[in-house]
Amino acid sequence: MTTQPATPARLHDPARRGFGSDNYAGVHPEVLAALAAANGGHVAAYGGDPYTAALEDLAREQFGDQATVLPVFNGTGANVVALAAMTDRWDAVVCSSWAHVHVDEGGAPEKVAGIKMLAVPAPEARLTPELVDREAWGFGNEHRAQPSVLTVTQSTELGTLYSPDQLRALCDHAHGLGMTVHLDGARLSNAAAALDVPLRAITTDVGVDVVSWGGTKNGLLGAEAIVVLNPDAVRRPALVRKHSTQLASKMRFVSAQLLALYGTDLWQRSASHANAMAARLGAGLAQVPGVQVTHQVQANGVFAILPPDVTARLQERVPFYVWAPATGEVRLMCSWDTTTDDVDGFVAAVRTEMGA
Amino acid sequence: MTTQPATPARLHDPARRGFGSDNYAGVHPEVLAALAAANGGHVAAYGGDPYTAALEDLAREQFGDQATVLPVFNGTGANVVALAAMTDRWDAVVCSSWAHVHVDEGGAPEKVAGIKMLAVPAPEARLTPELVDREAWGFGNEHRAQPSVLTVTQSTELGTLYSPDQLRALCDHAHGLGMTVHLDGARLSNAAAALDVPLRAITTDVGVDVVSWGGTKNGLLGAEAIVVLNPDAVRRPALVRKHSTQLASKMRFVSAQLLALYGTDLWQRSASHANAMAARLGAGLAQVPGVQVTHQVQANGVFAILPPDVTARLQERVPFYVWAPATGEVRLMCSWDTTTDDVDGFVAAVRTEMGA
Amino acid sequence: MTTQPATPARLHDPARRGFGSDNYAGVHPEVLAALAAANGGHVAAYGGDPYTAALEDLAREQFGDQATVLPVFNGTGANVVALAAMTDRWDAVVCSSWAHVHVDEGGAPEKVAGIKMLAVPAPEARLTPELVDREAWGFGNEHRAQPSVLTVTQSTELGTLYSPDQLRALCDHAHGLGMTVHLDGARLSNAAAALDVPLRAITTDVGVDVVSWGGTKNGLLGAEAIVVLNPDAVRRPALVRKHSTQLASKMRFVSAQLLALYGTDLWQRSASHANAMAARLGAGLAQVPGVQVTHQVQANGVFAILPPDVTARLQERVPFYVWAPATGEVRLMCSWDTTTDDVDGFVAAVRTEMGA
Amino acid sequence: MTTQPATPARLHDPARRGFGSDNYAGVHPEVLAALAAANGGHVAAYGGDPYTAALEDLAREQFGDQATVLPVFNGTGANVVALAAMTDRWDAVVCSSWAHVHVDEGGAPEKVAGIKMLAVPAPEARLTPELVDREAWGFGNEHRAQPSVLTVTQSTELGTLYSPDQLRALCDHAHGLGMTVHLDGARLSNAAAALDVPLRAITTDVGVDVVSWGGTKNGLLGAEAIVVLNPDAVRRPALVRKHSTQLASKMRFVSAQLLALYGTDLWQRSASHANAMAARLGAGLAQVPGVQVTHQVQANGVFAILPPDVTARLQERVPFYVWAPATGEVRLMCSWDTTTDDVDGFVAAVRTEMGA
Repeated sequence: MTTQPATPARLHDPARRGFGSDNYAGVHPEVLAALAAANGGHVAAYGGDPYTAALEDLAREQFGDQATVLPVFNGTGANVVALAAMTDRWDAVVCSSWAHVHVDEGGAPEKVAGIKMLAVPAPEARLTPELVDREAWGFGNEHRAQPSVLTVTQSTELGTLYSPDQLRALCDHAHGLGMTVHLDGARLSNAAAALDVPLRAITTDVGVDVVSWGGTKNGLLGAEAIVVLNPDAVRRPALVRKHSTQLASKMRFVSAQLLALYGTDLWQRSASHANAMAARLGAGLAQVPGVQVTHQVQANGVFAILPPDVTARLQERVPFYVWAPATGEVRLMCSWDTTTDDVDGFVAAVRTEMGA
Repeated sequence: MTTQPATPARLHDPARRGFGSDNYAGVHPEVLAALAAANGGHVAAYGGDPYTAALEDLAREQFGDQATVLPVFNGTGANVVALAAMTDRWDAVVCSSWAHVHVDEGGAPEKVAGIKMLAVPAPEARLTPELVDREAWGFGNEHRAQPSVLTVTQSTELGTLYSPDQLRALCDHAHGLGMTVHLDGARLSNAAAALDVPLRAITTDVGVDVVSWGGTKNGLLGAEAIVVLNPDAVRRPALVRKHSTQLASKMRFVSAQLLALYGTDLWQRSASHANAMAARLGAGLAQVPGVQVTHQVQANGVFAILPPDVTARLQERVPFYVWAPATGEVRLMCSWDTTTDDVDGFVAAVRTEMGA
Repeated sequence: MTTQPATPARLHDPARRGFGSDNYAGVHPEVLAALAAANGGHVAAYGGDPYTAALEDLAREQFGDQATVLPVFNGTGANVVALAAMTDRWDAVVCSSWAHVHVDEGGAPEKVAGIKMLAVPAPEARLTPELVDREAWGFGNEHRAQPSVLTVTQSTELGTLYSPDQLRALCDHAHGLGMTVHLDGARLSNAAAALDVPLRAITTDVGVDVVSWGGTKNGLLGAEAIVVLNPDAVRRPALVRKHSTQLASKMRFVSAQLLALYGTDLWQRSASHANAMAARLGAGLAQVPGVQVTHQVQANGVFAILPPDVTARLQERVPFYVWAPATGEVRLMCSWDTTTDDVDGFVAAVRTEMGA
Repeated sequence: MTTQPATPARLHDPARRGFGSDNYAGVHPEVLAALAAANGGHVAAYGGDPYTAALEDLAREQFGDQATVLPVFNGTGANVVALAAMTDRWDAVVCSSWAHVHVDEGGAPEKVAGIKMLAVPAPEARLTPELVDREAWGFGNEHRAQPSVLTVTQSTELGTLYSPDQLRALCDHAHGLGMTVHLDGARLSNAAAALDVPLRAITTDVGVDVVSWGGTKNGLLGAEAIVVLNPDAVRRPALVRKHSTQLASKMRFVSAQLLALYGTDLWQRSASHANAMAARLGAGLAQVPGVQVTHQVQANGVFAILPPDVTARLQERVPFYVWAPATGEVRLMCSWDTTTDDVDGFVAAVRTEMGA
């Protein structure tokens, strides 16, 4: 047992940044201030606190009068609780083959909620009604898990966007089939900022039924929420959240984070900045001879093909991930605290390593 | 979209406290300071950060050289991930009928991990080898879910303690049956402080295999961990954590909280204080004519029977819960920030309401 | 690869019988004849055949106009599909601590359907409204798996019966709490025969919502069914049956068995006979000095305490099971083909071994 | 309550056959005779009978000395129990996008066992090592459900075959990745008969680890089994079978069916006949102008494209299924009791309806 140090230990270099993930970035100072403001005294646990009540007001303001909100810990939790509350024992969820919930969550929907995922290959990670139809069939056929939910990601896992019209077409199509629509909005703020629209323009107004409302990737410590836009699309989400291990006891601190981000223009400032940094990075890389930018840069991610040896040398200096080993494609994520120097320095380094 | 306020909103009265739960209390200032220190710059997500590395060192220091640690969000998560990593598809877990994981987690073990819970009525919420034997049988019988894990809670859900010898007897008995032992330590610090022993004296040293290492109830914002003391008792806990939705992306902030609490003497200071407040409260109530304190006050909880009308009037002033409506038993939890004035004022109010 | 034998091999002694289980007995000749009659040609699979249609008519005849029927393979399947179709993700089932579905099905409800079982100790394996209330609480409390179904077994696992009035009181009580009622009728025919009432008198007429309609223990090869008496008590049971692995492709042969048993008086003849043999056995044993019959003999099972050495010597001659090793209690099941000689011979053997 | 009819009712026309499914056909007379031979007297339940012991001997004889066998009720049960026993909580199974277990079992692997299915589009329903690699990656990555099992179907869902060499290449590839191999042999006998090899030549000898050993589609009443060829590929399959609802109480009658089929040359006679009928049907249809046979006819299924109006008129006479509504492709299954007259009559009818 050691004694209390005079000041808490800082074990990392706060001047070091990279393009590894928007999860590598820390917490926006305004969010830390909001946590301090929410501290002190006792408030009811499990959501019976004034910060969660204020978040409920905010959700209605942002998403419309029918909106209800359930704060959770992380994106996997938001997606799993949302999909579990939207489905029955016998249901399946149609998704893009790039969908984070299909590819990167360890099989959480299957393992926590018994949901069958029906994945469709989707160019640029964007589904279309035609692509949805490849798996959305067999309604009423007892041999087939029932495709009851369509999940889409906005902005997508490849840094691309759906236009509001594209989303509306998907929602109309799904609803026409008797399905409901979930939107994985881990980077919803990046999408709204990029499109320069309010959140509801790509959710409520286009017919989305339930949203995973992200915050962690845009400067929160760790806070996401399920926003139910259509109350008929879910059953007992609070009970599902609890048994899915996602009910926070000191929920005031989860809600206060989301309030700090979305109750002000912080979400726009931070997301617009990250998007701008990605645009700058994408434009810079596209001008380096031999570098191929592989997807449209529409939000805060840039994908590009680099020679493996170049990638290896760059990674010694700056963290980022190889996305597709077979092709040499790498992923470069920008965040609320990425600087123009970070971007320009990286482009210069690429140029140097490429011998360009 | 509103504009950014000059200072974050405080929506509650920080001077108000009660006995509702140790989850009603906020975050210790040293913990908030630690979060600020861990902020800034980029570090690897999902545990590849120096704070999580330091927590791993700390876990070995506190629990022994074999200990490994997996930070998670909350107690339900710690319990479910631990039990899921300790069991196979065909297994069952023996627990007290008071066990939080059986009673208060919405069926999470069954629903997330398909675990059968075999609950045994246990006086004072303490199991004994004889009580365990009521459900620990049928090994190898294909008609019976296999009782493979014993879970105990320290301090218990009734505010009582197991002595180290009692725990050792349970662990020896379970091991003799081929079972492993999980300890739900949501209030482990309260137990260790009350017994005036290091953490390992009631975990590693008595034979516990896996611990849910609590922090939230002792002044953290929201951080718990699974500590694996016996590596043979679990299989692939990191994979289980992920698909159980409990892998934090910005894990540095989870680990930093646990470091702030357990890397200093803060856990002891806070837990000892909460325990002392409960002792004072229990002693005070026991002297009020007509009030019956129902369980030994050994940690930070007090249980007492009050007339329902007295309870109702008291609850208008101070939050606390009715534990057993049939008998009028109430539960009063003390926390790191409970004051002697809080306690004495409550006892005085009880005395007044009782007309004593 | 061997060549076809002229006649199929008989590998057992068809003259040998015991008291091991009503599952040890074979198939009634009338049932084998019904299988042969249902054979030949092609009929639609998965229930689209005339035998299943006739079974649907029979179910309405026996259980009332609202009844629908889903044939399945075995009792575990009937219970799991029924309970899964009656519950949602967040639900729990209240049962007796003797309930076969709790004790002897390997945790199937938890593992296949994520159902939390809330078991209540029940004398003579009979629940009462007061006993149900020990676990039927916490409705709407998000921390508690929601007790939504009560399951009872008739005849019980201890060979006892509920009277129609006792069942009605339980159903009324459960319905008053917003719960539905499942009846595990693996030995429903034994109960109805013992009470000398039609099947509906202990199911539909007393308020049961869903029945596991047993047949295998009463002379079938292997056939059970879920009978839904209250259509509002289940959701999509056909889909649940399929993904629970219980949809028979050649369902005509499952349905034909149930038709042979319940479409004639065979169920009564066989069950009455088995019950009469148990009564004779119980009465015989009760007269052997030193033997204690431990439960009322109301159906086809007899429970008695014998000295362990006596049990061991008897088991060398005749198969039966020790039920409770701690007390020496044994279980003796009679079946449709048990003879008076079997019974009298066993009683005589007990008498001899007891030295009486 | 009706009285016992003198003879059991026959509710269908035993002279009517079609091409709906090999599940539409009934029970081979030799199998019915075997059931009668296994009847009478008492034998131990749940597999402790001499028929199941003989089946264990037979499995060793057919599949090699390491083989063990677990009889179950149906193909869904065999597949789910096998895959569940081969996987852990965190695992995924790679399959063809045509795989019955992925497409036609209502999501049973996900819902009963939490298994993530990773489906790869596969021409002619045959996987190759290269196709497997599209999903068999991410080993050790905690964000990815671990691909631990490859499942292949022989004969395939499109009536095609893997050659022994093709299977060996798949098994070698999977083993090289640390994966094990499951073979869905619902129509294993059709494959072995078509290839004119013993069962082990396409299972044990090529490296398959676990087989779903089919029987129902080849003239049984309802009996399948899991055959474990590599004991290290599974964990506690008997426990998994039980809690997955697939443990038969009167198992002697399940085992006796499999003995009747595979303990003689019945499996070869029946499967060869069905295959020959399909070959005749495929050849006949291929000669009808305007009819396109879409897949190689290698086992007992024929796929062909017919004009929708022709299909509709033919279905009024003979049951068969439309396989792909978009193209008009139909599926025609032959079984052990299909006659040359059935085939020739159908071809003639097609010719007539096509106006050919």
